[in-house]
Amino acid sequence: MKKLINDPNTVVEEMMEGIVQAYPQYVRKLEGFNVLVRADAPVNGKVALVSGGGSGHEPAHGGYVGKGMLDGAVAGAVFTSPTPDAIYEAIKAVNGGAGVLLVVKNYTGDVMNFDMAKEMAEMDGIKVDSVVVNDDVAVENSTWTTGRRGIAGTVFVHKIAGAAADKGMTLEEVKRVGEKVIANVRSMGMALTPCTVPAAGKPSFTLAENEMEIGIGIHGEPGTHRESVKAADEIADELLNKILADLPYESGDEVAVMVNGMGGTPLMELFVINRHVASVLKEKGIKVYRTFVGEYMTSLEMQGASITLLKLDDELKGLLDAPSDTIAFKDFGR
Amino acid sequence: MKKLINDPNTVVEEMMEGIVQAYPQYVRKLEGFNVLVRADAPVNGKVALVSGGGSGHEPAHGGYVGKGMLDGAVAGAVFTSPTPDAIYEAIKAVNGGAGVLLVVKNYTGDVMNFDMAKEMAEMDGIKVDSVVVNDDVAVENSTWTTGRRGIAGTVFVHKIAGAAADKGMTLEEVKRVGEKVIANVRSMGMALTPCTVPAAGKPSFTLAENEMEIGIGIHGEPGTHRESVKAADEIADELLNKILADLPYESGDEVAVMVNGMGGTPLMELFVINRHVASVLKEKGIKVYRTFVGEYMTSLEMQGASITLLKLDDELKGLLDAPSDTIAFKDFGR
Repeated sequence: MKKLINDPNTVVEEMMEGIVQAYPQYVRKLEGFNVLVRADAPVNGKVALVSGGGSGHEPAHGGYVGKGMLDGAVAGAVFTSPTPDAIYEAIKAVNGGAGVLLVVKNYTGDVMNFDMAKEMAEMDGIKVDSVVVNDDVAVENSTWTTGRRGIAGTVFVHKIAGAAADKGMTLEEVKRVGEKVIANVRSMGMALTPCTVPAAGKPSFTLAENEMEIGIGIHGEPGTHRESVKAADEIADELLNKILADLPYESGDEVAVMVNGMGGTPLMELFVINRHVASVLKEKGIKVYRTFVGEYMTSLEMQGASITLLKLDDELKGLLDAPSDTIAFKDFGR
Repeated sequence: MKKLINDPNTVVEEMMEGIVQAYPQYVRKLEGFNVLVRADAPVNGKVALVSGGGSGHEPAHGGYVGKGMLDGAVAGAVFTSPTPDAIYEAIKAVNGGAGVLLVVKNYTGDVMNFDMAKEMAEMDGIKVDSVVVNDDVAVENSTWTTGRRGIAGTVFVHKIAGAAADKGMTLEEVKRVGEKVIANVRSMGMALTPCTVPAAGKPSFTLAENEMEIGIGIHGEPGTHRESVKAADEIADELLNKILADLPYESGDEVAVMVNGMGGTPLMELFVINRHVASVLKEKGIKVYRTFVGEYMTSLEMQGASITLLKLDDELKGLLDAPSDTIAFKDFGR
């Protein structure tokens, strides 16, 4: 295992310290917990958003803490759900009196632990609600999931529900907006190479020299199938076809596109993918309102990509374009 | 070779198309050339900045085209200098009447081709000047360089000279600011893994399973030495010691820090490196004014990192914090 780390046992702690030392204007860490909250948390009177999950998906989720997105992000061990007590501490630290919305990716452990934390906070009289993101169209159930997995589309939930909260909407309204995003966002990914969890020391699966996995999850969970590596355009077609078949899309619809790198993929390749996505959508008369190309939801050093489409209406467009200011999300189009 | 591409011969063209399709609000491509210019170029009355180099270093250089940074970026083939005619077209397209500053990384081919383009443009009566970035302290001469190589520190030149131009400074002033950055910026990198140029189809060098190369260039050019992979803190020390020995640093000095990923390195590892950089600088009484952690100047899918320190005075601090708006550079601290 070749990694720029000191010790698998302290890598998450050390990463958290490195983030806070780099970006104290955005985040502070809760003492004793791998939780990052807005430097100015709690924001009084605003609905607060808390998300999180296993580490290894950086810049998710700490990179999305800041104005117009998350108020808190909880980091578990690598590819491991955060504990209820850490989530509970995050909720308490960001609660500004208007309630807290939990944005949970659909993995059994995450859902369970966020639910327990919600109950703990409710016993303190904090109003808490949650939404569960399940944008991955690849498979219905998977290694750690009942139902569909939550992957890169989660970042659109952070952005848009975060904007709703920033505009002063109530917890009910922010939840409604979050669920509207979830109803309209679809993703699918693939990998050229596996990745190595530091504590394991070896890749969690292997792929032959000319093999790729289609529909893979962000922890290397099995996808739909393995096949020989094809041209980028054909790979993009495989992902897009499944995404486009999952919701009714009509000519004239508007979407936001995210072409997300899995951690080890050069930007060059993501842009080659985006070229084809743009051309397929154009052919179908689907209008691309905004595009985001980069690393948003990763799997350590895995090489691969996912494609996300979010169907937009006027409300979602407005909130997508609302200003945000976080470590990792760059606003566009203003 | 596993890559998300269609054809090694068209990969740069296709990438350029993918960038423009993603971010038309920022850039447009010059017909017939792999040149990206600001969507609103030329900006009348403003000194224009043009940079570029081989492809494979994304988001450099096209990702830095926009308000407050570059006006144009010229992309050669992968790891190959752009041709003089492409650079010449870029200069003509961005010239707003106040002159054009070329920001060139110190590679023999780049320096030669940018110089030729400068002469071509001067024959058209365009005022052109240039600065050459040579921030890499690792080695004095290298595969494609006489003198020191230009690497990630170049991004600080884009940002700060770009801000100077945006403030309305003259070509002479913008050049002076660019040279001040160059005089004060120092970098050094390392790699855990090689990378594969698409047209070559195989890695340009090999590293043993437990081996890393210290002082490597951004095209995989040899560095100072190879050794067994060590803990992240020790690796950071090796790079930092050489950087800190290269300029007089005193307690109370202020610096901007960039921890740059080589393309295939997870953000997690870059933050672990930053943690140690921050702690060493603190020990020495050197104040970190701003930190940038991410992928700024890459080598395709190479795993590794570079560290850059920029010594700051009040002028450089002000220009570093001036607003910019490009695809890949996220402003901080306001």
